[in-house]
Amino acid sequence: MDARGGGASLKTLVLSTGDPAGIGPEVSLKTALAVEDCRFLLVGHKRVLDRHAEKCGLSFEAPRVARPEEAPPDARVCVIEETRWPAPAAMMGQVVSSCGAASVEYARLGARIVQDGRAEALVTAPISKEAVALAGLSYPGHTELLGERCGVRKPVMMLVGGGLRVAMVTAHVSLREVPDLLSTERIMGVARVVCKGLKADFGITQPRLGILGLNPHASDGGRFGEEDKKLIAPAVTTLQSEGVKASGPLVPDVAFWRMRKGEFDVLVCMYHDQGSVALKTVAFDSGVNVTLGLPIVRTSPDHGTAFDIAGKGEADPSSMMAAVALALEIAERRRGA
Amino acid sequence: MDARGGGASLKTLVLSTGDPAGIGPEVSLKTALAVEDCRFLLVGHKRVLDRHAEKCGLSFEAPRVARPEEAPPDARVCVIEETRWPAPAAMMGQVVSSCGAASVEYARLGARIVQDGRAEALVTAPISKEAVALAGLSYPGHTELLGERCGVRKPVMMLVGGGLRVAMVTAHVSLREVPDLLSTERIMGVARVVCKGLKADFGITQPRLGILGLNPHASDGGRFGEEDKKLIAPAVTTLQSEGVKASGPLVPDVAFWRMRKGEFDVLVCMYHDQGSVALKTVAFDSGVNVTLGLPIVRTSPDHGTAFDIAGKGEADPSSMMAAVALALEIAERRRGA
Repeated sequence: MDARGGGASLKTLVLSTGDPAGIGPEVSLKTALAVEDCRFLLVGHKRVLDRHAEKCGLSFEAPRVARPEEAPPDARVCVIEETRWPAPAAMMGQVVSSCGAASVEYARLGARIVQDGRAEALVTAPISKEAVALAGLSYPGHTELLGERCGVRKPVMMLVGGGLRVAMVTAHVSLREVPDLLSTERIMGVARVVCKGLKADFGITQPRLGILGLNPHASDGGRFGEEDKKLIAPAVTTLQSEGVKASGPLVPDVAFWRMRKGEFDVLVCMYHDQGSVALKTVAFDSGVNVTLGLPIVRTSPDHGTAFDIAGKGEADPSSMMAAVALALEIAERRRGA
Repeated sequence: MDARGGGASLKTLVLSTGDPAGIGPEVSLKTALAVEDCRFLLVGHKRVLDRHAEKCGLSFEAPRVARPEEAPPDARVCVIEETRWPAPAAMMGQVVSSCGAASVEYARLGARIVQDGRAEALVTAPISKEAVALAGLSYPGHTELLGERCGVRKPVMMLVGGGLRVAMVTAHVSLREVPDLLSTERIMGVARVVCKGLKADFGITQPRLGILGLNPHASDGGRFGEEDKKLIAPAVTTLQSEGVKASGPLVPDVAFWRMRKGEFDVLVCMYHDQGSVALKTVAFDSGVNVTLGLPIVRTSPDHGTAFDIAGKGEADPSSMMAAVALALEIAERRRGA
């Protein structure tokens, strides 16, 4: 496939290509080559992308520029590589600090390009939280990194796929920390961001929010923990009094089935795996992560670096392509608003 | 349908009919009427069953006896009601202590009938943990109740459905309590019971166990919590050294997809909703709960009392019928062993 030419009339997306040692570069390349109705700015080291293309048998040619403003408007795919970046040690499949550092640079620049109005949306390929930490950086994930970059204190992570939308009140923390991180205020804050996001970005006039319980059976009338009654129920009541269509605390394990049957537009989950287990079980190949509450449009595939298959050509770009499609859809809706 | 006659040559199952105010009596009746190739001993108050039959428009006739040994061998369905039981206040859809107390009596007697060799297996309709607690009893669930009844200290709850088998290391406790309840020893204990159960009851010669992590991304190399490395990984290593085909700690949200693709025979989950969210999201209508490690065969539908639809005739007996089918299958396999 030829990645050059015909770019000038297309919408522009930024793909930050993720950890150089993972499958991010591969799914980014596969997506940029396959999705022909938009223009891609790939943020990453050209050498890394070339290496992945070679190992995965992809035919990839694209200009490289050092600054976004230098990207030729008529190139359908262009690589942006800043000269000041540290070179990543190209250890395919390894957790390496230089790769962690590079992946953060890619995401930061990607966000800036969209903030500066040079692209419609940012789609981020996976980073390794472990590699990022090795590099001495403290981001638990893209959501937090981009929140800081955009000056938003509490962006919300939402996963979309398989007939589900799940938003997280807490995300990249240990399970042990979850109960003490929850508060009525925090749950309401997330629910408000989610409600606003579904209206603006998904075109749902009156979103129906299902607010999940924390404990099994939503504590079965207080048998297992107090959080459902003491923290979550008051949040639901207050949200309702503000005119939000909120229900809960819902029995967690039944809630996802209810949503798939059409009862809710989104489920507000108390912790990462509460929502992520349900979503990945039904939509592993096609799940998309959306950050709500940011001034920029940002999505990502709902999978990790998959170091075990990096550089083998086996990575499935479906989720990345779904992330691109959703980013375009949201950008279109925001433009129309 | 006629529930009488032709019972003598059939296998006998006990159905404990669950909380009188929930949908347990209704799904028990529907199942006993629909599944014609076995004989049912329904444990519960005849008056309660008649009331549900009437409200749900079911034609139900069956003899009532006070002791299991009095059940006529040729009756395909028979109600067993002990005279000493307290009468439940028949408040359809309400959480009532007398109903909680009655539901525990049903389950206890049901277990005894199977222990005494008068039936092949026990299938339990849902009880309300809240009603049971109101009655001053302290069982968090059937699993614990039947463990006590059978003198088994650590029975294991496993859910089956939608291409998944999920066993729980902890179950009916608040999420806050989970991390401190986990230990390498406890995880290994559950895994051993699960391994034995899959061999004996499911006929799997060398069960492949996936042992889940506790934290999101199985802590992503130690970023979110220490349990995955310190408690779970050593359990996996020891199990492997004992010849158990165990893998882990697995990234929780991806594990269920991997099992559905055929990589594992069972997933050992660290907490109730880790397994239950996945299972109910894909198999809400057909999930079955099996207790492993008991001398008796026991299954149950994977749903609750559903007080909101009790007595309306709307309850779906699919899960109860699946529980009956699995109980028969396990009993058959144990007999053949």
